[in-house]
Amino acid sequence: MTKFAFAFEEGDGKNKKLLGGKGANLCEMTQIGLNVPPGFVISTEACLTYLGNPERALPPGLMDEVRGHIHCLEERTGKRFGGEQDPLLVSVRSGSALSMPGMMDTILNLGLNVKTLKGLIAASGDERFAWDAYRRFIQLFGKVALGVPDEAFDAELDEIKRKAGVKADIGLGARDLHEAADRFLGVIESTPGRSFPDDPYEQLELAIKAVFNSWMGKRAVDYRREFNITPDQANGTAVNIVAMVFGNLDDTSATGVAFTRYPDTGENKLFGEYLVKAQGEDVVAGTRTPKPIDELADEMPELHRQLVDLRNRLESHYREVQDFEFTIEKGRLYCLQTRNGKMNATALVRTSVEMVGEGLIDKKQALLRIKPEALDQMLFPRIDASTASQPVARGLAASPGAATGIAIFDADRAEKAGHDGAAVILVREETKPEDIHGFFASKGILTSRGGKTSHAAVVARGMGKPCVAGAEGIEVDVRARTARIGDHTIVEGDAISIDGTSGDVYLGEVAMLPPTFSKELSTLLAWADDASRLQVFTNADTPPDARRALEYGAKGIGLVRTERMFNDTERLPYVVEMILAETKEARQAALDKLLVMQRGDFRALFEVMAPRPVTVRLLDPPMHEFLPSERQLEDDIAQLTQLQDTAEGLSVLGSALAMMQHDREAATKVPMLADPSVIAEAIARKDAMLRKVRVLYEVNPMLGHRGVRLGLTLPEIYRMQIRAILEAAAECQKAGVDANPEIMVPQVCTATELAAVKRVVEAMRNEIEAREDLKLKFKFGSMLEVVRGCLTAEALAEHAQFFSFGTNDLTQATFSFSREDAENKFLPAYQRLGILPANPFEALDRAGVGRLMRLAVEDSRARYPSLKIGICGEHGGHPDSIRLCHEIGLTYVSCSPPRVPIARLAAAHAALDEKPAVSSSV
Amino acid sequence: MTKFAFAFEEGDGKNKKLLGGKGANLCEMTQIGLNVPPGFVISTEACLTYLGNPERALPPGLMDEVRGHIHCLEERTGKRFGGEQDPLLVSVRSGSALSMPGMMDTILNLGLNVKTLKGLIAASGDERFAWDAYRRFIQLFGKVALGVPDEAFDAELDEIKRKAGVKADIGLGARDLHEAADRFLGVIESTPGRSFPDDPYEQLELAIKAVFNSWMGKRAVDYRREFNITPDQANGTAVNIVAMVFGNLDDTSATGVAFTRYPDTGENKLFGEYLVKAQGEDVVAGTRTPKPIDELADEMPELHRQLVDLRNRLESHYREVQDFEFTIEKGRLYCLQTRNGKMNATALVRTSVEMVGEGLIDKKQALLRIKPEALDQMLFPRIDASTASQPVARGLAASPGAATGIAIFDADRAEKAGHDGAAVILVREETKPEDIHGFFASKGILTSRGGKTSHAAVVARGMGKPCVAGAEGIEVDVRARTARIGDHTIVEGDAISIDGTSGDVYLGEVAMLPPTFSKELSTLLAWADDASRLQVFTNADTPPDARRALEYGAKGIGLVRTERMFNDTERLPYVVEMILAETKEARQAALDKLLVMQRGDFRALFEVMAPRPVTVRLLDPPMHEFLPSERQLEDDIAQLTQLQDTAEGLSVLGSALAMMQHDREAATKVPMLADPSVIAEAIARKDAMLRKVRVLYEVNPMLGHRGVRLGLTLPEIYRMQIRAILEAAAECQKAGVDANPEIMVPQVCTATELAAVKRVVEAMRNEIEAREDLKLKFKFGSMLEVVRGCLTAEALAEHAQFFSFGTNDLTQATFSFSREDAENKFLPAYQRLGILPANPFEALDRAGVGRLMRLAVEDSRARYPSLKIGICGEHGGHPDSIRLCHEIGLTYVSCSPPRVPIARLAAAHAALDEKPAVSSSV
Repeated sequence: MTKFAFAFEEGDGKNKKLLGGKGANLCEMTQIGLNVPPGFVISTEACLTYLGNPERALPPGLMDEVRGHIHCLEERTGKRFGGEQDPLLVSVRSGSALSMPGMMDTILNLGLNVKTLKGLIAASGDERFAWDAYRRFIQLFGKVALGVPDEAFDAELDEIKRKAGVKADIGLGARDLHEAADRFLGVIESTPGRSFPDDPYEQLELAIKAVFNSWMGKRAVDYRREFNITPDQANGTAVNIVAMVFGNLDDTSATGVAFTRYPDTGENKLFGEYLVKAQGEDVVAGTRTPKPIDELADEMPELHRQLVDLRNRLESHYREVQDFEFTIEKGRLYCLQTRNGKMNATALVRTSVEMVGEGLIDKKQALLRIKPEALDQMLFPRIDASTASQPVARGLAASPGAATGIAIFDADRAEKAGHDGAAVILVREETKPEDIHGFFASKGILTSRGGKTSHAAVVARGMGKPCVAGAEGIEVDVRARTARIGDHTIVEGDAISIDGTSGDVYLGEVAMLPPTFSKELSTLLAWADDASRLQVFTNADTPPDARRALEYGAKGIGLVRTERMFNDTERLPYVVEMILAETKEARQAALDKLLVMQRGDFRALFEVMAPRPVTVRLLDPPMHEFLPSERQLEDDIAQLTQLQDTAEGLSVLGSALAMMQHDREAATKVPMLADPSVIAEAIARKDAMLRKVRVLYEVNPMLGHRGVRLGLTLPEIYRMQIRAILEAAAECQKAGVDANPEIMVPQVCTATELAAVKRVVEAMRNEIEAREDLKLKFKFGSMLEVVRGCLTAEALAEHAQFFSFGTNDLTQATFSFSREDAENKFLPAYQRLGILPANPFEALDRAGVGRLMRLAVEDSRARYPSLKIGICGEHGGHPDSIRLCHEIGLTYVSCSPPRVPIARLAAAHAALDEKPAVSSSV
Repeated sequence: MTKFAFAFEEGDGKNKKLLGGKGANLCEMTQIGLNVPPGFVISTEACLTYLGNPERALPPGLMDEVRGHIHCLEERTGKRFGGEQDPLLVSVRSGSALSMPGMMDTILNLGLNVKTLKGLIAASGDERFAWDAYRRFIQLFGKVALGVPDEAFDAELDEIKRKAGVKADIGLGARDLHEAADRFLGVIESTPGRSFPDDPYEQLELAIKAVFNSWMGKRAVDYRREFNITPDQANGTAVNIVAMVFGNLDDTSATGVAFTRYPDTGENKLFGEYLVKAQGEDVVAGTRTPKPIDELADEMPELHRQLVDLRNRLESHYREVQDFEFTIEKGRLYCLQTRNGKMNATALVRTSVEMVGEGLIDKKQALLRIKPEALDQMLFPRIDASTASQPVARGLAASPGAATGIAIFDADRAEKAGHDGAAVILVREETKPEDIHGFFASKGILTSRGGKTSHAAVVARGMGKPCVAGAEGIEVDVRARTARIGDHTIVEGDAISIDGTSGDVYLGEVAMLPPTFSKELSTLLAWADDASRLQVFTNADTPPDARRALEYGAKGIGLVRTERMFNDTERLPYVVEMILAETKEARQAALDKLLVMQRGDFRALFEVMAPRPVTVRLLDPPMHEFLPSERQLEDDIAQLTQLQDTAEGLSVLGSALAMMQHDREAATKVPMLADPSVIAEAIARKDAMLRKVRVLYEVNPMLGHRGVRLGLTLPEIYRMQIRAILEAAAECQKAGVDANPEIMVPQVCTATELAAVKRVVEAMRNEIEAREDLKLKFKFGSMLEVVRGCLTAEALAEHAQFFSFGTNDLTQATFSFSREDAENKFLPAYQRLGILPANPFEALDRAGVGRLMRLAVEDSRARYPSLKIGICGEHGGHPDSIRLCHEIGLTYVSCSPPRVPIARLAAAHAALDEKPAVSSSV
């Protein structure tokens, strides 16, 4: 005959399916020698047998097994079930293979009746406690096992409280509670077909059935449907029957909760709180203030010793920080429950690293224990939730970290305020490439439009600055320099705070928690590097970014976006001059000025990173991105023309000043503005820009005249950039710096494009090597961000020493989704409708983009097995995407500096999770 | 010892590499028994040996071989080389494996000197002819063999003409030409180191060397470089030495050219012209009018018989229409040359089909003989070049055919003029979807901007109307209703003509040649269908288009673009209403009106095509394409507001009328325009449209909110269309029409999209089947035009009964090229720079797009082997692309109606060219 009930001493602690999570855990704790209150578990098999029986009778023999186990409990505790002196009481709890909170209430103190109550009063010496336990048991049993509605009990209790003139249960005395118990029994007896069983075994049988029935109850069924729990994962519930222990019997009794180590810092020391003569609820409810666990050493030295011993046993068994509950009943320590402790990242990293040192776990276990994303907490300041006011708006958590500063609504003014030393939060409807100088000068970015991959979000993440994007509750009025958030109006200069990790926006300043890049984290990440097959590079455009990434362990720069350099305030005028040039010569003159600046930029980056590689992408965006919009220019010209027509002294000058602040070049001439020739000149320049903007207009700029297509049709630009890179490398070499530039061509769709740029590079190399009398050291390669580039990777590889996937553009082309349009228009609906499981611009798409990447890698490596292939799209910093990159055999991933630690850990996870493990040295 | 010279009787007629093209041809003609003047050929091997010898001596023994061959010629002709009576004269010509026109001049009459000249005079009885031949020979030999500059000879001849008082050579008499010969000899003798050899063999040796040397001459080297001729294709030149025959010796001599069949009609009858007592130049030069060949039957009956015999022999040997030259010398017929006759498509089709009937060739040969593209000529009217004036501008040949009509600069007025019966040419800077009604009403389209895949070009091709696009020489001023073409100004209403096959634009009316879809073409295309594995469908949106395609042999409709129906004048207001709707109900009300119209459209198409399939694509373009542009609306509102502000009677009303013509709805209210409330209403409506246009704005509309993405987020639209299709099918079924609709979903990138639409289709099917009590017959499938759709085709196939590649969009996404931007910005430069060999929007890209297609076909057919897969992009009508479609195993190609015949032939070519031939039944 099937065995349905298992004593904790005999149940298989690994068999959660049969015994439920809680039951298995109790068995395991018992079997490793912890002093768990004695008990037993009725299997899920019994539950399923019961539910499968149309007559809903318990399986034959089950109650006999239960009786046997109860006898054992009686022997173990020296108490008797239904006994009149010091009676054995038990708790009855459900427990399935997966935790399903709230599926059924726990029934405590089962076994109480008028007779055993007396024994409880005697044993506890506390009449009120005993009556309270009794009336609670009657109500809960009535409701759970007998199906009597709660309201009837509550009405009686309210009546008693009214009579006693108290508001809370706590105000009721023993007599009141006695009356409650009587009235509750009356409620049950007056319910047709119900009656309260005095026989403890009858109580127990009804309780077991009630637990079984709860598996098919509405709450449980709803829960399983909501969380997609299949019978495969959990089928039926077990029933746990445990002897009650009481921490409130006398002064040698106590109860408490503890962590085996400090959950906030990870310090290797017992942490916890307790109360003497108290129940678990008292510690949690806060009616009494619990004492720190250290005081137990004075109060009950022996029990403190036992508690430390318990802690050691828990850690040596579970090899993970434990969060456990204990009760001391008349000087005897019981462990009621234990589970893995929830800790912040700092503590988790420290304890994991230290447990390796203590020999409790190995490095692989330490690495796998920590979710890569959790490291975010250790890299950015956070809002101190304990001191902060309520947020006033919420947007998308677009770039992690928190910042406080004054709101400024315009990049130019943000730059000025930043230079003047103010902490600035740049607040915009949305940002554009020409706002880049505003980003540099700001502590954080807040936009009211755009998604997680909007310009603001991408740039902020690249710079490692906090950003809240698409906070739709905020209405920005740039002209009035105000923003409305609900009822509040923010005027430029008002303090504001943002949390880019949560997306919250706060008024005023709020307190911050500093980041904590600890020595344990360094240790952990070094282990991660040893375990990984992928290297981690960074996307960085400036020496400060590069330095930060180096500190975080980047092995090189995978992407320098030269257009970020073009957008610098100082350079933009020359870029515009270059774009407006009517002749090759005029264009070259502007480029010559840019050459000097870019060469300096590159040299500085090479010096910071030496001897690591620095991958420089040649200019990618279309020309019109460096010019104002058509609409803006038309407005400017209209205003300037008006100004010209009606020069009316100072008032006109005032409005001109405001308008001219959009135009940095003209702004330097403000004192002369009254001079009509200056206005005429400004109009002429704006006119030229407007004409050019119209010529450059494109229907689909994402698929337009940009990248290598621009590089080959206006070859002077790439020539300038290639010269700047190679001359910077030559300067480094002469200065003894081991520079390792890698020149990367964007938007390549056919091998002939790459070959054409390579010819320019080789000619330039020959010229510089001859002139400088040295051998240049650099690599030449291609972005793979065009579908056709991936499909013809083998042909491209003939001209390339490396590839780098640009998965942002590749995702757009593979899905035919324009990122900006998709995130504003249909992507949210697509996720809501379940058409797409995730935003493919956040989670690299395996079936489409991933397949293309795999194909490109396999094709090109088939012919060039050692080809270096990386990824520099934003996906390069996301753990799931990194896993895919690992699987298809990439050489490196490149991500923004603050994601470098996360990527290092994720790369290790990818390698360690691989079966069979291949390259792990851990 | 190597043999270098081969008599025509012995040379291998297939060995063009050794004997050159001309030499091999002369050998072949001789050996099949044609009376070719006797001669021999010196091999290219001799040439290479000579050129490889640093001393530039002829290979040892070569001149001995030559002497031997000359003796044979003497025997064959009864003349003597250098003989004083009836001397043997020869021509000397170069000839390599590939034709290289102009590489070297032909030397005629070699062997002439003072002595042999007398014999020539005696034999011809024409002193002037003989001296003319002599002076020409001296000059040509002097120039070609001795390197004496032409100018020296020309100066002497000018002097003689001046003395004789004549302008042209033809005016010179025998005496003048005698003097010329003497002076020419003097020129040679006075050139240092040069002298004219009287010895014919010396003449011959020098001529042979000159031919050999010409292989390395500048002209030949340049030519080979220009046309990429490698030594593999042609290496060295042969020398052809042939006995001269004269058609001008006496009245029993004659010369002529002939085709074995009529080259303009293909009629199976000898066609040609001849002149008695004349040389070949006389026929070509037009100094005398040649007679039709039929007259030869009267003039020289026996020779006419021989000529017909020659014709028969030529055709039975070459099995292709021949274009040949003949000479009759003293009653003896010689065939001098033959080659495949160049014919127009009509003649080529007729002769090929008839030759199959005559047993000369088989069907496969007939099919392969005709280039598919050539059929264009038979399907469209053409400009009669013989009567047309010079074109005044040239654009891109965007849609074939020619048209004459009055120029109209606006779609609305074009529609009106068309309805009034005028033949209209719609002339625009560029066209937009809202111009569609203007297309319907016009005979042809002319634009000054845009490429071969611009909107105008695509739509015109779809409708089979002639279109010249991007005629940059034309400046269109829509407001003034004029266009400038060079010095000419066209006012609206002026006649104009366009040739969409050549791209030419003419002023005024020009004569047209009608199309000639002949019964022979029908026969040929029926054979083509038998030979093909691919079926040919058509893209058609209207019953007239569908009927035309049926006549051309389409097996079904592969693409009905429902948005074309949306753009119809009558419907657009409801479409706009639907777009502007603020509530689901308002949107549904507009859709209900459209439902009735679309159901009628579909029913009409099903009826025309029954029982063939009709593939209806659900709505594809983004909503904003149905609204005016933001700029247009702003202008309209500004003008309306001005009108409102300053109502100034009739003059204002006049301008309002003009402006309101842009707005069809408001235009119907013109009589009430003076009423301010009407103006206010118009402004409100335009304002609503403007707001919507701004909401709908997209950065990259090609990758935006369109296709299935729109269909799933605004589900009412697809519901309406699906209902219209299925109800139309039900109506047909009840009327006994065997309708076979196929519902096609555009822009699919993931299987979940397809599944979501399918659920709607199935629900609608159930509803209609229950209501109408019948079983609907239709298919459901997907476009493959998104890269990810191709990459996940296997998953898509689970929900689809067919696929259709949309290679226009697929090419855009695969290259990351926006078609419009690419063709305006960088694609021309890319072709010029050799980055891309062809425009991928015209020629389907094998390496990228083709690979994706192959992958999608293989993946989906692996699981669903009989899956129907077609192509409905524009590539579906282009022979090279059709070949690719055949190779990857598509079921059908679909193209615009006028390309159906071309596609049928191309499909046959693809199957017949396959090795080994698999399915050919020909």
